[in-house]
Amino acid sequence: MSRLSALGVSSRISNGKGDSCPTVHGMDRWLLRMFLRSIGDPPLRAKLWDGADSGLHGALPVVGMVIHDRTTLWRLLTNPLLNFGDDYSAGRIEIEGGVVPFMETVYRAMTGKERREPSLRRHRNSPDGNSVAAARGNIHHHYDIGNDFYRLWLDREMLYTCAYFPHPAASLEEAQIAKMELVCRKLRLKSGQRVVEAGCGWGALARHMAREYGVTVRSFNISREQIVHAREAAKAEGLGKVIEYVEDDYRNISGRHDVFVSVGMLEHVGPEHYRELGRVIDRSLTGDGIGLIHTIGQNSPQPMSPWLLSRIFPGSYPPTLGEMMEIFGPCDFSVLDVENLRLHYARTLEQWLHRFEENRERITEMFDATFVRSWRLYLSGAIANFNLGNLQLFQVVFSRAANNLIPSRPSPLALVSDPL
Amino acid sequence: MSRLSALGVSSRISNGKGDSCPTVHGMDRWLLRMFLRSIGDPPLRAKLWDGADSGLHGALPVVGMVIHDRTTLWRLLTNPLLNFGDDYSAGRIEIEGGVVPFMETVYRAMTGKERREPSLRRHRNSPDGNSVAAARGNIHHHYDIGNDFYRLWLDREMLYTCAYFPHPAASLEEAQIAKMELVCRKLRLKSGQRVVEAGCGWGALARHMAREYGVTVRSFNISREQIVHAREAAKAEGLGKVIEYVEDDYRNISGRHDVFVSVGMLEHVGPEHYRELGRVIDRSLTGDGIGLIHTIGQNSPQPMSPWLLSRIFPGSYPPTLGEMMEIFGPCDFSVLDVENLRLHYARTLEQWLHRFEENRERITEMFDATFVRSWRLYLSGAIANFNLGNLQLFQVVFSRAANNLIPSRPSPLALVSDPL
Repeated sequence: MSRLSALGVSSRISNGKGDSCPTVHGMDRWLLRMFLRSIGDPPLRAKLWDGADSGLHGALPVVGMVIHDRTTLWRLLTNPLLNFGDDYSAGRIEIEGGVVPFMETVYRAMTGKERREPSLRRHRNSPDGNSVAAARGNIHHHYDIGNDFYRLWLDREMLYTCAYFPHPAASLEEAQIAKMELVCRKLRLKSGQRVVEAGCGWGALARHMAREYGVTVRSFNISREQIVHAREAAKAEGLGKVIEYVEDDYRNISGRHDVFVSVGMLEHVGPEHYRELGRVIDRSLTGDGIGLIHTIGQNSPQPMSPWLLSRIFPGSYPPTLGEMMEIFGPCDFSVLDVENLRLHYARTLEQWLHRFEENRERITEMFDATFVRSWRLYLSGAIANFNLGNLQLFQVVFSRAANNLIPSRPSPLALVSDPL
Repeated sequence: MSRLSALGVSSRISNGKGDSCPTVHGMDRWLLRMFLRSIGDPPLRAKLWDGADSGLHGALPVVGMVIHDRTTLWRLLTNPLLNFGDDYSAGRIEIEGGVVPFMETVYRAMTGKERREPSLRRHRNSPDGNSVAAARGNIHHHYDIGNDFYRLWLDREMLYTCAYFPHPAASLEEAQIAKMELVCRKLRLKSGQRVVEAGCGWGALARHMAREYGVTVRSFNISREQIVHAREAAKAEGLGKVIEYVEDDYRNISGRHDVFVSVGMLEHVGPEHYRELGRVIDRSLTGDGIGLIHTIGQNSPQPMSPWLLSRIFPGSYPPTLGEMMEIFGPCDFSVLDVENLRLHYARTLEQWLHRFEENRERITEMFDATFVRSWRLYLSGAIANFNLGNLQLFQVVFSRAANNLIPSRPSPLALVSDPL
């Protein structure tokens, strides 16, 4: 089933030639120029359905786009941020020169334009798009589309969050293990401690913690498919008794724990719930407990792309560090350590995209060509955003203000001095 | 000269017995209980001028206070946060059991009280207490009271900011050098780079950077006495040509630099000037430049103690991490790394206080007994606040969003696993 078809996006994988409007008029070229201007005049080749280049660019642009019909051109003008993604996914737009470099070129121009015209910025759209009920729908939309699908392009342990590359040649598998090690070392895990995890994906971090550090873990997740996989994997490893995977919302975490950890969930919480999350941590953590939140972030509050928000990650928002302080400040948690790993996420995504493309045919069979194109665009756009510094990856370590058992910062896992 | 006398605080170093009101009435004990209640009923012995203990406490309070006369008792009731400091300084209040433990006991009770009654919180008092002109007065008040005075209790290189103790037995001298090393390593200094420093104290960091890393440094400071010392010290080391100490406000920094560094100045900038500071950094830093700000901070926006603000550090304010983002967000700087060193500051202050007390007689000769008592209270209160987690020490590393030359985190300098 195509996820986009289900969302009402009609798919028309093109044969490379438009058929509905064979003649290109002067008005079409003018509309194309208006569209390019509206996105900050990126230096790219832009072709309409006659194949002639109408882009406004310098000598040798390396990337380009082809718009296959007049309807698509109009759609780009009326709502470029939503319709570009849909029309690329549906095959009504082609990208030349690689999707990642294309997206970098466009984002670079758009960032400049946003700086000049701040009114382009949109604000968070939903007053509560992440209530307990809405969150279930949002998470189901993205994470419950089939473990078999994710298995095709994630690492062996199925971590769907930023890895940590201790050296340039590290494989994705190594880098995901290194990320889990980094998290455990920042938390100074000790045997016998009780860990609570908010948002556990397919459960790899809980298994790593229990296996390597002898802790017990309660992991919360509202993705049904992920929980089923996580339980099976823990049982297969003989960790069924020390890990409890709970199919429930983070807001229902109960009990007292020595460690709170959350890797890749905050993006789905929504800033309007940060204080609530802080209160959940406050009631869940012992007096000398310690916590870590790992999340995609940004430098200043910008909305998600409407396409990403409606088609890929409903209800998501990457916080600024300042916004994250709403979690910590009101409950008097002290931030002990922040590390920004954004280039590690660009590299992680590159590996995912590479594996995704290697399994393109298989994924097309599982879903359809529109699905493949939309996920390619999502992964490529994310690589571009992490490479350009539009997105950050923050790991934040915290404890209660009065806790004086402050761990010293662990040595980096890097085997070489400058891995990136 | 007594700084407090100059501020209109009358000094009356007591002989330990009040003389103006020899008889203690029931009303006096009631007023004392009201005062203790107003500061959250800390568990301490509280005596009036007859020497009888009127504190409301459990079995064995280790600390206590003696109020020598009725006027002081009334003053504590009407404005405890300002008058306690003045009356202790003037000798109208004595502290028993050590000033640091006493302050910790009181702050612990007051923090609880503030949580219960948030209305106790005060907000920043001055709309612009840190204009270019006001800043000169503020800085002059604290830093221009004599290099000979600071030489008595700071380390050899005269650093008046949080040190970094790589192991528990490190001396203050070692710890200050380790702090400078830590800063240089976080900035990945390279020979030939141009560094600009905002607020340089007596110039030790600039000399360390120039001597150990072969960089050139321009250091800004508006404290006349510090600049004079800094220039002489650089000349004596033969570093006069690679360091320029500029007697000017950070807002007048000009030129382009590879590195921006500021250790212990942000406390004097004021949150209303953070955006402006961000713009100064923005115009001063090259495209692939990197910066570090080291500052006292706090978890949520609380005002300074009015006594500290009026008597010791006019115009000062320790920011939250969220407030600091006003520096970085609007100019699209990315935070790369944050480390909280608050227990290192408690240890630093303990060393300063120890040396200060060793030189008590000399300092009394230089100023007077009131000055000694007021500085003892300031240093002790700061130790208490860092120990209790009411104050933080943030080192924040940042660069431009689009800069992909992100340094990997350096290994800690710690020689043992858990120095604190």
